[in-house]
Amino acid sequence: MEVYDLLVKGAILGETGRKTDIAIKDGKIVKLEPDIKAQAKELIPAEGRIAFPSFANMHTHVPMSLFRGIGADLPLMDWLQKVIWPLEGEFVSPEFVKAGTRLGVLEMIRSGTTLFMDMYFFEEAVGEVAEEAGIRAGLGFGILDFPTKVARTPEEYIKRARAFAEGLKGHDLVFPVICPHAPYTCSPKTLMMAREVAEEFGLYLHIHVAETRSEVDRIKEEYGKTPVRHLEDTGFLSDRVLCAHMVWVDGEEMEIVKERGAKVAHCPESNLKLGSGIAPLPDYLRKGIHICLGTDGSASNDNLDMLEEMSTMAKVHKGNSQNSKAIDARTALKIATENGFSAVGIKAGRIEEGYEADLILVNPDRPHLQPLHDLVAQVVYSAKSSDIETVICRGKVLMYKGEVKTLDEEKILAEAKVWGERIRTFLGRTRP
Amino acid sequence: MEVYDLLVKGAILGETGRKTDIAIKDGKIVKLEPDIKAQAKELIPAEGRIAFPSFANMHTHVPMSLFRGIGADLPLMDWLQKVIWPLEGEFVSPEFVKAGTRLGVLEMIRSGTTLFMDMYFFEEAVGEVAEEAGIRAGLGFGILDFPTKVARTPEEYIKRARAFAEGLKGHDLVFPVICPHAPYTCSPKTLMMAREVAEEFGLYLHIHVAETRSEVDRIKEEYGKTPVRHLEDTGFLSDRVLCAHMVWVDGEEMEIVKERGAKVAHCPESNLKLGSGIAPLPDYLRKGIHICLGTDGSASNDNLDMLEEMSTMAKVHKGNSQNSKAIDARTALKIATENGFSAVGIKAGRIEEGYEADLILVNPDRPHLQPLHDLVAQVVYSAKSSDIETVICRGKVLMYKGEVKTLDEEKILAEAKVWGERIRTFLGRTRP
Repeated sequence: MEVYDLLVKGAILGETGRKTDIAIKDGKIVKLEPDIKAQAKELIPAEGRIAFPSFANMHTHVPMSLFRGIGADLPLMDWLQKVIWPLEGEFVSPEFVKAGTRLGVLEMIRSGTTLFMDMYFFEEAVGEVAEEAGIRAGLGFGILDFPTKVARTPEEYIKRARAFAEGLKGHDLVFPVICPHAPYTCSPKTLMMAREVAEEFGLYLHIHVAETRSEVDRIKEEYGKTPVRHLEDTGFLSDRVLCAHMVWVDGEEMEIVKERGAKVAHCPESNLKLGSGIAPLPDYLRKGIHICLGTDGSASNDNLDMLEEMSTMAKVHKGNSQNSKAIDARTALKIATENGFSAVGIKAGRIEEGYEADLILVNPDRPHLQPLHDLVAQVVYSAKSSDIETVICRGKVLMYKGEVKTLDEEKILAEAKVWGERIRTFLGRTRP
Repeated sequence: MEVYDLLVKGAILGETGRKTDIAIKDGKIVKLEPDIKAQAKELIPAEGRIAFPSFANMHTHVPMSLFRGIGADLPLMDWLQKVIWPLEGEFVSPEFVKAGTRLGVLEMIRSGTTLFMDMYFFEEAVGEVAEEAGIRAGLGFGILDFPTKVARTPEEYIKRARAFAEGLKGHDLVFPVICPHAPYTCSPKTLMMAREVAEEFGLYLHIHVAETRSEVDRIKEEYGKTPVRHLEDTGFLSDRVLCAHMVWVDGEEMEIVKERGAKVAHCPESNLKLGSGIAPLPDYLRKGIHICLGTDGSASNDNLDMLEEMSTMAKVHKGNSQNSKAIDARTALKIATENGFSAVGIKAGRIEEGYEADLILVNPDRPHLQPLHDLVAQVVYSAKSSDIETVICRGKVLMYKGEVKTLDEEKILAEAKVWGERIRTFLGRTRP
C-alpha cells in the first residue's frame, strides 16, 4: 500500500464545490478523490475547509516591509527620492534585509502566498530566509547604471549577478533571477548584458516597465520611442522576461509583448496608491497576454496581501472600464495563482493531479463568507486573508490552523519593532 | 470620587500616537488623559492597542447578506432584474430580514462599524436586531411607485412610513429614516410626499441618486434633465438628504448639492464591482461637499467591511486621478468615521471629550502592521478588519478581544447556512 507524505482529508474544492481528499507525495498532488484509503506520514483534517491554490506574488521588494507607512500619499518619484532612497542609504544591510524579509515572508505565508519574485539588495539574505521559511522565491538584486551598495558599474553588477546565480545552483525552492531595474535606469548595453547572463544560466529576467507617465516621457526623450518599443528594438524582450507594472502601454506595444511572449506582473494597489494610474488589464486579457499579479513592496501598497490584491484588481477594472464583465472572479483567481507560477515555469496554481502541492485551506465559518453560494466569487470578493488557516508549499505545511510552523512570529515582530524605532529615530520622530 | 461607566486603560490614540486612558459615562467620552485615577463599573485593558473612532456605514441593505456571491460579475440592471428581484420575490419576509440582519450586523461589529443606514423591506425587523446587538441604525423601507411586499401605492407607502416613524418614537440607538428609493422609481409627487413626512417627523431622507449612466439617460429622457437637477427642481433636496452613490454628477450639479447641504454616501466597491463607474470624489472634496462612506449591500460588494472600503476608496481615487494626493489617509479615515455620524446629526467619529463613545481598539502586533511608522496611514493602507479586537458603541462593549458580546455567532452562522440551502435549492444548485 502506498504511503503518501501528506494527506488532506475532506476538503471542499473551491473550483467545483466537491468534497475530496488530496494526497501529496514528493511535493506533488498525486491523487485527488474522496475517501482515499491509504497511509500518510502527515494528516491534515480539512472537513468544512475550502481548498484553493496558493498565491504567487510576482513582483515585490519584500525587505521594504520595514519602511511601510512612511511617505504615504506621495507620488512615485517624490516617495522614492525624498523618502525611500535616503532611508535605504542609511539602513540597508544584510541584517536589515534579513529582518525585513522575515517580516514580509511571515505576512505572505499568513496570507496564502507560496511564491514571490523579489528585487532588492542583498538577495542572498532574502534567499536564506525564504529557504528557512519553506517558501518559493525567484530572487535578484536590481542592476543599474549607477552605483549602489551592491556594485559600482554595470560590469560589476553583471559579475555579481553571475556569482549570485552560481551561488544558488542546486537550490530548489529559491532560484536566481536577473533583474535589470528598468529601461530608465539601465542603458541598452546594460540591458543586453543582463539578457546574456540570463541566457547563459537559463534564468528569467525581471524588470520594471512603463510604471508612470513620466517614465514614458523620459524614455521617449532619450530614445525617441516608448519603453516597450525601446526594449524590443534593443533586443531585450523574450518569453523569459517578466515586466512589472506595464501601466502605460499602447495597443501596438501590447502586440509586441504578445508576440514575444513576455509576461506582465500587474501591481494594481501600488499603481493606485502612488497615483501611477490603472493598467489596461481588460486589453491585456482580450489580447491573450500572460498576466500575473504582484503586490509590489509593502512600502507602496501597504501590505503583501495577495488576496486583497486580487479582489482590488477585479473590482478596479470592472469600475474603470464600466463593465462588470471586464474580468470575472475565475479569471482573477487564475491571474493571482496559476498565471504566476507558470510565468516562471512552475507547474502549480491548480489543485489537480500532477501539479505541485501549493495550496491553502480557507475557513468559511465567518459572517462575511456565509452563506456559501459561489466559492470562487466569494474568495475573490468577500474573503479576507485572515480566513486562510492552512498553507502548504510543495507539500510542506507552512501554516496550520493559523499557526506559522516555519518561522518564530513573536521574535520576528519584536525584531521589526527594534528596526522601526531606529528608523523613526533617523526620521526624527519620537512616536509612530 | 467620580465613577465612570467604562474606563479604557492605556490605549494609543491613532491620531496622535499618544498613550491615554478614555473615561466614558452615559455613552460619552468624558475624560481623555493618561493614568486616570477613578473607579469605573467596567475596565478595558488596552495596553499596546490603538484606538480609532468606529466606522459609520452610510448606505447599505443589510439583509441582502444572505444573497452574497450570487450573480457575481453582472452589471447593475441585469443583477437586479435577473437575480435579485426574483430571489426577493421568493424569500423576503420578516424572518428572512431578521436572519440576514443578524448575519450582517455580526459582520459589521466584527469589522468596527457602530452605525449603519439601511434601506430594505421589513425594517422593523432590522431595528429589533440592531437594538439587540447594541448598534446604531438609521432605518427605512424603500418607497417606490410600484407595489412590493411593503405596500401597493405611493400613498400606502407614505402611510406605512408614518406608522414606522411613530413606532420608533422613543427608541434611541435606532431611528427612522424616510427612503424614497430613487428618482427613477419615484415620481416627483412621491418624492415630495416623502419629503413632507420627513419634515413632519424631523427625519432624514435617504435616496439612491445617479448610480449608473443608464439611470442618468433614463431621467434625462423622462424629465429632460439630469438626476440632481431634477431633484433640485422638484424641491426635494435639503441638508437632511443623504444621496447614495452619486457617480454621474456634473460640476453644476455639484454646486447644487453644495448649496443645499445634501450629503453624499460614496459606495466605491459596489460601484466598481457592478461596473457602474468611479464617482468624482476628488471634485467633491475640492468643493467641500459633505462625503461619507458606505458599503452598499453585501450582494454587490461582497462584504460589509468599512475598513476595506476606506482603503479601496483612498487607493482608487489616487489611481484614477493619477494624483497620489487626491485623497490622503487622514481624509479617508474622516470620511469613513466622523463624516458619517455627523451626516445624521450624531456627535461621534472622533476620540475627544464630549463625543459619543463609539470607538475601536486595533491590535498592531501583526506582520502586516509592523513596524508602526504612521498609525493613520497604516490603518488605512495596511490593516485588515481582523486586526480590530474591541468595539464600543455609545459606551457599550459590543466586541471584546474578538468575541462579540451581544450576538450568538454560532447560532447566526448556522441559521445563515439553512437560508443558504433554501436559496440554492430555489436556484437549482446542489452545491455552492
